[in-house]
Amino acid sequence: MASEQAVLDAHYMARAIELARRGQYTTHPNPRVGCVIVRDGQVVGEGWHVRAGEGHAEVNALRQAGELARGATAYVTLEPCSHHGRTPPCADALVNAGLARVVAAMQDPNPQVAGRGLRRLNDAGIAVHSGVLEGEARALNPGFLKRMEHGLPFVRVKQAMSLDGRTAMASGESQWITGPAARSAVQRLRARSSIVLTGADSVLADGARMTVRASELGLDPETAALATERPPLRVLIDGRLRVPLDAPFFQAGPALVVTCPGSGAATRYQQHGHELLEIPAHEGHVDLRALLESLAARGASEVLVEAGPTLAGAFAQAGLVDEYQIFVAAKFLGSSARPLLDWPLARMSEAPHLEIIEMRAVGPDWRVIAVPAKAASV
Amino acid sequence: MASEQAVLDAHYMARAIELARRGQYTTHPNPRVGCVIVRDGQVVGEGWHVRAGEGHAEVNALRQAGELARGATAYVTLEPCSHHGRTPPCADALVNAGLARVVAAMQDPNPQVAGRGLRRLNDAGIAVHSGVLEGEARALNPGFLKRMEHGLPFVRVKQAMSLDGRTAMASGESQWITGPAARSAVQRLRARSSIVLTGADSVLADGARMTVRASELGLDPETAALATERPPLRVLIDGRLRVPLDAPFFQAGPALVVTCPGSGAATRYQQHGHELLEIPAHEGHVDLRALLESLAARGASEVLVEAGPTLAGAFAQAGLVDEYQIFVAAKFLGSSARPLLDWPLARMSEAPHLEIIEMRAVGPDWRVIAVPAKAASV
Repeated sequence: MASEQAVLDAHYMARAIELARRGQYTTHPNPRVGCVIVRDGQVVGEGWHVRAGEGHAEVNALRQAGELARGATAYVTLEPCSHHGRTPPCADALVNAGLARVVAAMQDPNPQVAGRGLRRLNDAGIAVHSGVLEGEARALNPGFLKRMEHGLPFVRVKQAMSLDGRTAMASGESQWITGPAARSAVQRLRARSSIVLTGADSVLADGARMTVRASELGLDPETAALATERPPLRVLIDGRLRVPLDAPFFQAGPALVVTCPGSGAATRYQQHGHELLEIPAHEGHVDLRALLESLAARGASEVLVEAGPTLAGAFAQAGLVDEYQIFVAAKFLGSSARPLLDWPLARMSEAPHLEIIEMRAVGPDWRVIAVPAKAASV
Repeated sequence: MASEQAVLDAHYMARAIELARRGQYTTHPNPRVGCVIVRDGQVVGEGWHVRAGEGHAEVNALRQAGELARGATAYVTLEPCSHHGRTPPCADALVNAGLARVVAAMQDPNPQVAGRGLRRLNDAGIAVHSGVLEGEARALNPGFLKRMEHGLPFVRVKQAMSLDGRTAMASGESQWITGPAARSAVQRLRARSSIVLTGADSVLADGARMTVRASELGLDPETAALATERPPLRVLIDGRLRVPLDAPFFQAGPALVVTCPGSGAATRYQQHGHELLEIPAHEGHVDLRALLESLAARGASEVLVEAGPTLAGAFAQAGLVDEYQIFVAAKFLGSSARPLLDWPLARMSEAPHLEIIEMRAVGPDWRVIAVPAKAASV
């Protein structure tokens, strides 16, 4: 059986994770972090990181705790930072406040921290412990962790399909496959992402703007305000620059357009308030891995791909998808309708394996969350 | 608030439904029925209908109750029968046993009963009440009710598809899309059905036998014995009589082959122990509605369709499907693979609407149960 200390550690860490989650829409490019300070069985301080450039979770919790922090235990969902960023190191703040013990859910994978924060605390005579509810803590920050550990963002592909796996009629007719509850869920996915990425076909066919709209989030006013204060960067892959600058997508605000080198169009896009990024081509198309590396280098943690079967299929085939969120409408679109992914396979042995981690009703529709299966052990 | 009597009525009826469910594999062509007899707050008799020609649920419960039935209340999931079938009317048995009160979950839709059973009881001075847990009781016998109310069996279409809605590779390669748990679930669906229906393409491509195999049911030995004692009739639609008589399907036991009129082959099939049924053609194919009417007339309540996209699509397009059970494997088969249903549609307004009533994990696969949506009110 777990020791009483372990039970209490998990209890307070769960609260810290709950606090961290409040930052899901705002902390970009920073991770979501929460902190709870406990003394003599009483919570004396709570904090979460709201936005980059402002106080980290630990500092916010220490402010609330004041003098009561002396001799207390701090629970924090990520190892306290040890480096000077836009704010001073949290490890120092914890030392100065006289904490007796610090429990971290996980080490910070940021190479500028990576154990140094905990060591700094330990060196100052504070008892440290790491690895409490680590799985839950990792789930707070899939993008930040992927970027720190692999130099790539976490790529989430959102799709809407019929029960027979079709995304649009052969004619391209596709709007409103799913209902309002599913659309709200998609709005929340956009709001939490660093980047919403789409392709020229989608923007041309649907007049899509890919914006976050407060009224469609389905959130209480306070959370909706947080979810709209930092709009995700809208990225359009347009290898042949087919989308005109007067399209609704461009009218809706500044965007980043990705194309192949040699377009000579950067100034024109800039004059309209947009940025043009040229990424080397791979087999005639924008190299998607190179693009993702470039976006990660700009601090992009979570990328939401909302695209048609061709672009979504290209991400899938390149092995760049971390998660599929598939909204399933309870209808059949029939056998001549468009596929989920343009990805022709000849043999079942080539079929990519997934793990379905959730199926849940979203209004009259259903949402399936699937992730690529870990390679089977030999 | 519900009266205490209503609470107790629901409590005992729930138990009667539980008992009825034990007959799910064996009662064909009769309905599944359970009965509980209660006296002074004590259950004094329980019974369920096991198989046609043997005692009905009420009679089995009365036998257990003996003299204690006098003055007691009987809970029965279906109105007691009032006609002489292969056994004497249960209504008479209840009267003779001296019951004081009879509670039925629902009236019997059988035109030979249809209220007469309850009237017979009432005329004999027994207090009667109908409509307790009626929805749950109806769910016990979707096929029996459909047959009595519409002269058609309840048609359940079972399919196995990938997450992108594909049933086989373009080459036809398809075996083992889903895992053992899903295959067990399909075995149980077969075992509870009056008829397992398939098409020539499936039998030719897969060498399918469409049998119930005790070892694959995933049931305890006692229930597995019940589930295999009455194998469903295997029906093959083969308009051009393409499946040879030495195919595994025919080797596995007697079958019913359905073809168009004028084949002149009845004797040949009969000599091999099979029956040939000629059904008028509709647009060059066996008329599926006429076939279902013919099967219902033979007592078929639940028909499980296990067929490829063409035949399953034909049932769907004809509006003859009551329920889809779609087993979803966590993989992509890709955009050149075969569709769920051969059913080309041009416009979204033509898309048939469904209601997804369940999504549930079955081993590593998932099962989606969907039913045609009730026509939207104008």
